[in-house]
This record gives sequence, C-alpha cells and structure tokens, in this order.
Amino acid sequence: MPQLSERAVRMPSSPIRKLAPLAEEAKKRGVKVYHLNIGQPDLDSPSVALQALKTINRTILEYSPSDGFLSLREKLVGYYDQYQIKLTAEDIIITTGGSEAVLFAFMTCLNPGDEIIVPEPAYANYMAFAISAGAIIRPITSSIEDGFALPSIERLEEMITPRTKGVMICNPNNPTGYLYTRKEMNKIRDLVKKYDLYLFSDEVYREFIYTGSPYISACHLEGIEENVVLIDSLSKRYSECGIRIGALITKNKKLRSAVMKFCQARLSPPLIGQIIAEASIDAPREYAMNVYEKFIERRNCLVDELNKLPGVYSPIPMGAFYTVARLPIDDSDKFCAWCLTDFEFEGETIMMAPASGFYSEEGKGKNEVRLAYALEKKELKRAIFLLGEALKKYNQLSSNRNQ
Amino acid sequence: MPQLSERAVRMPSSPIRKLAPLAEEAKKRGVKVYHLNIGQPDLDSPSVALQALKTINRTILEYSPSDGFLSLREKLVGYYDQYQIKLTAEDIIITTGGSEAVLFAFMTCLNPGDEIIVPEPAYANYMAFAISAGAIIRPITSSIEDGFALPSIERLEEMITPRTKGVMICNPNNPTGYLYTRKEMNKIRDLVKKYDLYLFSDEVYREFIYTGSPYISACHLEGIEENVVLIDSLSKRYSECGIRIGALITKNKKLRSAVMKFCQARLSPPLIGQIIAEASIDAPREYAMNVYEKFIERRNCLVDELNKLPGVYSPIPMGAFYTVARLPIDDSDKFCAWCLTDFEFEGETIMMAPASGFYSEEGKGKNEVRLAYALEKKELKRAIFLLGEALKKYNQLSSNRNQ
Repeated sequence: MPQLSERAVRMPSSPIRKLAPLAEEAKKRGVKVYHLNIGQPDLDSPSVALQALKTINRTILEYSPSDGFLSLREKLVGYYDQYQIKLTAEDIIITTGGSEAVLFAFMTCLNPGDEIIVPEPAYANYMAFAISAGAIIRPITSSIEDGFALPSIERLEEMITPRTKGVMICNPNNPTGYLYTRKEMNKIRDLVKKYDLYLFSDEVYREFIYTGSPYISACHLEGIEENVVLIDSLSKRYSECGIRIGALITKNKKLRSAVMKFCQARLSPPLIGQIIAEASIDAPREYAMNVYEKFIERRNCLVDELNKLPGVYSPIPMGAFYTVARLPIDDSDKFCAWCLTDFEFEGETIMMAPASGFYSEEGKGKNEVRLAYALEKKELKRAIFLLGEALKKYNQLSSNRNQ
Repeated sequence: MPQLSERAVRMPSSPIRKLAPLAEEAKKRGVKVYHLNIGQPDLDSPSVALQALKTINRTILEYSPSDGFLSLREKLVGYYDQYQIKLTAEDIIITTGGSEAVLFAFMTCLNPGDEIIVPEPAYANYMAFAISAGAIIRPITSSIEDGFALPSIERLEEMITPRTKGVMICNPNNPTGYLYTRKEMNKIRDLVKKYDLYLFSDEVYREFIYTGSPYISACHLEGIEENVVLIDSLSKRYSECGIRIGALITKNKKLRSAVMKFCQARLSPPLIGQIIAEASIDAPREYAMNVYEKFIERRNCLVDELNKLPGVYSPIPMGAFYTVARLPIDDSDKFCAWCLTDFEFEGETIMMAPASGFYSEEGKGKNEVRLAYALEKKELKRAIFLLGEALKKYNQLSSNRNQ
C-alpha cells in the first residue's frame, strides 16, 4: 500500500475514546462499565427539543445554508446577550459540533509550522486539530498543586516566537474545571494585543460554573475584537452531544469570509440538529437550573469521594464537568486499560480517560486521569468506590510483582 | 488582525454556493429563482425515513460511536452486496456526509506537496479538500467534444511524478454525468497497481445510471483492494442531503486505523442522521424506481431543451443528475451572476454553477455551466426557457456594448 501521511501517523488516538474497544469487550463479558471517560451527560435533553424533533413535518431532508439557518443564528444572538456577549447573526457560523469550529479556526488561521500556545492539560482534540492544520502546540503546563491555575503571564510571554500565531484557551476548562479570573483574562488580552495574536476561546461550558466567580468571555475583552475566535457547542448545555451543532463566532469579517469557504466545501451543518438546537434555546429556565443543581451535587460527591481514597487527590473544579485527579499509580494509560481488561468487582468496573492524552509532551500526566461527572450521584459514588477497589488490587499486584 | 493561513487564501469559493447571496437578494426583490446550481433533489425522502424520524423515542440525544452505529454499517453491507461490492461492517466508517469522507481520506493519505491526478471537470470541493490537506491536484482535462470521456491512459500515466500519491475519480461523474467503462476502469486499476497509488473513488451517484451500461465500482477491481478508498453518501439516493451521512470504505486495515483517529477527534457523526439513514435503506424498491424514472425523464427534458437553444450544446449525461453545457458566452462566472443581479423574465430567473469552478486551471470552462436536473420536469422546462431568454438579452447587451 502507499504510505500514510505524516500527519496521520502523528495524529494521536483520542484518550477519551481509544479505550472504547476494551470497554466493548468488557461489556460482552457481562461486566457493567461506569463511564467516567466521556462528557456525555446522562440527563434528558430538553422536552421542547424532543418535541420539536417529533413534529418535524418536512418531507425533503434537504441542505441548509453553509453558515446554518438564519433563524438559529438570530436566536443565538439573544442567548449570548444574556451573557453580555453582543453579537449579530452575521458574527455566528453554525458548525458540525464545536469540533468542526476548532478545525476550521485552525485551518483558516494557522500555516504548517505556526505555533499556538495552549495551557495544559488541555482538551485532547485540540492537538488533533492542530496536527490536521500542520500547526504546532506549544504547551504551557499548569499543575494540579496550583489547582491548574494559568501559569504566570511572564512564562506565557517567554514562549512567544516569531511563529506564534495564537493562544488557545478553554474556559471553564476541560479537563481541569479551572475558570480563568478576570485578571488572568486581562493579561491574556494584553498579550494578544501586544503580539497581534489570535485568541481561540472554547467556552462550551459557560453554563457550568459553580463558584459564583464571574464568567469572563474572550468576547468581553476590549480592543481585541478582531483577534477573538469563540468556539461554542450546544452539546453540553442541552445534553445533545449527538446532534453535532456548534458555532464559530468572530467579529472579524475577513476571517469570517475565509471560514465560510471551508463551510461551503462541506456544504452544510446537519439539518435536524439545527432544528433541535433552535428549539432547545427555548428550554425553560428550570431546565438549566435543574441541570446545574445536579452537576453541583455530582461535583461535590465526586471530589469528596475521590479525596477520601488513599493517595488520591483532586482539586475542586470551578466549572465544566470534569476533574483531573492524581492517583497513586505510575502509568494511568496502563491502569485505565487494566481496569477494563483485568479488573472487575461484583461484575462492575470503570472507564476513565488517562490524562497523558491531555498533555502534548511525553511523560506528563502519567499519574493523572480525567474523570467526567456526567453520571447520577448514586452511580458516581459506586464508580469511585470501584476506583478505590481497583487501585487496591492494582497496587497489590504490582507490589507482588516487585517482590 | 493576524494573517490568514495560506490555505485559507488559496481555498476556492464553492462554485455551487458562492452565488447564493445574489440569489437571496433576487428573492428579496420578489424574483423567483430556479435552482439549477445545486444537487438537492426536490423529491420526497422515503416515507420509512420520515416515519423513523417521527418515532425516535430517545430522551438523550447522545454521542454515537466514532465510526457510526454498527447496525447502520451492517445494513450497508447488505446494500453494497446488491452491487457485488463485498464488504464487512469493519470496512465501513460512517462520516458526516461524503464531504467528510473525502477530507479524511486526503488528510490520512496525502502529505503537503503530494499530488493526486483528477480527471476534470471535477466536483469542485475535491480541490477545497486537497487544499485543506496541502495536496496538489494535477488535472487531466476531459472535453465536452468527447462527451467528457476519460483521456487516454497514456496521458494519465505521463502525469505521474515521484510526488503522485493517488488518482481521484467520480463515477458516475459530477459534474459531467460521465460513466467510466469497464475498459477505462481496468486501465485505472493497472496504473494504480503499477505505481502503488491510492484510488479515491466517489460513487455517490451509482443509483443514477441511465444507459444500461454496467456500473464498475473501484471495489470490483481485483488486486488493488488495499489501495481503494470508496467515498459514499446517502444524500442523493434518498433525497436526504441535510442529514449529513456518508461513508468512507476501505479494506486496508492500517488505513482504517489512521482514518479512525480523525473520526475520534470529531467524536461522532450525527446521531439523528444515522437513524434516518438506517431506516432509508429499507425504503421499498418502488421508491428507488420512482426516483430513477423521474430523473430519466428530467435528463431527457433538460438535454433536449438545452440543445434546442441556439449556440448551446450539452452531451447526454450517462449518470448522476448534472450536465455540463457549453453556452454562447465568453465568461460564465459573469453570466451566472448577471442572471441573478440584472436579469429577470416575467419575475423569474435561474441560478447555475459556473463551470470554471470545476476546473483547477485558470481560464478553463469559461463558456460552460453545470446544470443539475433535480427539479420537476415542468420547472426544468421553464428554467431552460429562461436560460434562452437570458442568453438572448445578455448577448444583445454585449453586442450593443461592442458597437
């Protein structure tokens, strides 16, 4: 066969999904698997959305505009306004999930060899999309000891080279749950302005902020309106990961036109997803409140239970629905796989995402895992109990091996 | 603002969609626009599919597997079997439309600077996806005089360089409607084998073959099983362009694993689209028959009416639902825009895709347009009548200008 491309070889496997075949096998053996690996909430999608789905009375399931339905974009304008993000429908491009928004942003802004600075641990697929565009991620590592706060802006500035084209942040952060402070956001703004960089800001978890601290959007920052590319997704807030509807938001007209060429090439975002998305924005306030309360409860449960386990440490995530926890193990890739292949307790086990995949440098995050708290409290409690049992057995086995 | 990427600058606007804003403006002025530019059939989607949509009783619209539901892939195995394409579910990866299948194929197989040979005129978005991957399209031009037959294989072989990584065909062809003969396909196979190339074969129009000639799939060719990447889409055959469900098919395990990394990065194809797609495969034979008969009728109508117009020539397309016609004009980009901005007849006009966008070399196809025959026969007849009126007026104006 002809060779694969270099990018295909360099492309990482998803740390969130690469263990999926092992989980499938465990399930085939009759083992119940608690999914702590993936951010798919178990909560119902809004009933207005499900209702909209049932009452679609189109007879031709046809293309939609390449930038998405105007009616959806107009409705989103109102949604963002609640967060003091002032947009017009023209500023919004509907994408096939937030994933496509990141891909198109990178493809449009970054040349092969261009660099972007990304605080790590970071959402693993940024690396995949950077590799797709031939760009290089220059990681700036935040640490679990500091609760994954942004490293000093001086360290960030030191990393800037003539090839630096942008900074990518995720706020609130996946995988750490960290929420950037106003001070940090202002520092990022100053840097972006000083070096004329792009600021790619993934803010899909803005609904999930648990601390009373203010949410500072990249779109709130003055003086860098032309530099900001906001990444959004409707998946998380409406428990609709499957509809694949996201958005790329920019006030930069030249950038918008360029992104639109990529949008036209793939013709249009999903039709049905857009109809569901539009209906979802009308979900009553109680829907969001209920979801929010569940996640507060789950967060507390997860962090409490984790920190009770010997040798385990998790900071308290301020937002999103993940935490990165440190485990008393040497290699979380091995441990996470082992949980699926060799461990079970009363016919049950857990699936987690090894944190190594959220760092771009080899060797980092080896004793960390990302845990999503997208499960019912009772299930979550059981899952963390199982983690405790797994750790016990795993460490017993390794100490036996070392004797 | 920071600079755009070079690929974003080089990225072509879609010849099919770039005139859309002009059409919108015409509609706002109250002008009825006949869409000959886009391959969205006006036929209803199968009622089994619409029924499946209405009876979805999921309460969480969640992620699906990155390679798509197994049940859908298994059903597709049966579908392909009807065409003597022997596959397993493992050979099939569900993508977000055929578009994503092409993008992932190129991203996985082609390095920046790698070349692929593409008979032209070709589906415009191949160029967009090649640019996305940094690859170079080496066009081999077929001509309207030869009914767009594949140029001699010797000419094709002459174009091979050390950077040639593959050949991309579309069969039956969009935009020309040409269907490759068995002899041509065998020659392509020999070349692919001799130089160990990838053969990317877009066969989304296999249902639309009007001549009784056999459909030879790239998957029928023996000895190049590891080299073939089949691109497919359910959009056209079920009038479901909006569901964004396609497929990338390969028997090459290494290639599959590499493509899967791109699939995992974007998480999953659309959930609802897959449910609709799966139901659509069960559409009764009469559905396909009815669609087929409509297109036969429309094809005949379109070609007859076109060739009646003075100075207009269209070969008879053997498949798909497009034709490339030569018009008595000097610049189809200008003419197609003019039809939307400056022409109307009894409050009506037409939208066509300038053929220049289907050639990668500047200056080619300047007197050609692509016309889709995805409209009702009556509408089609009226649209071609309007084309005749537009040509009369346009040429009158230019001859006045030249006097």
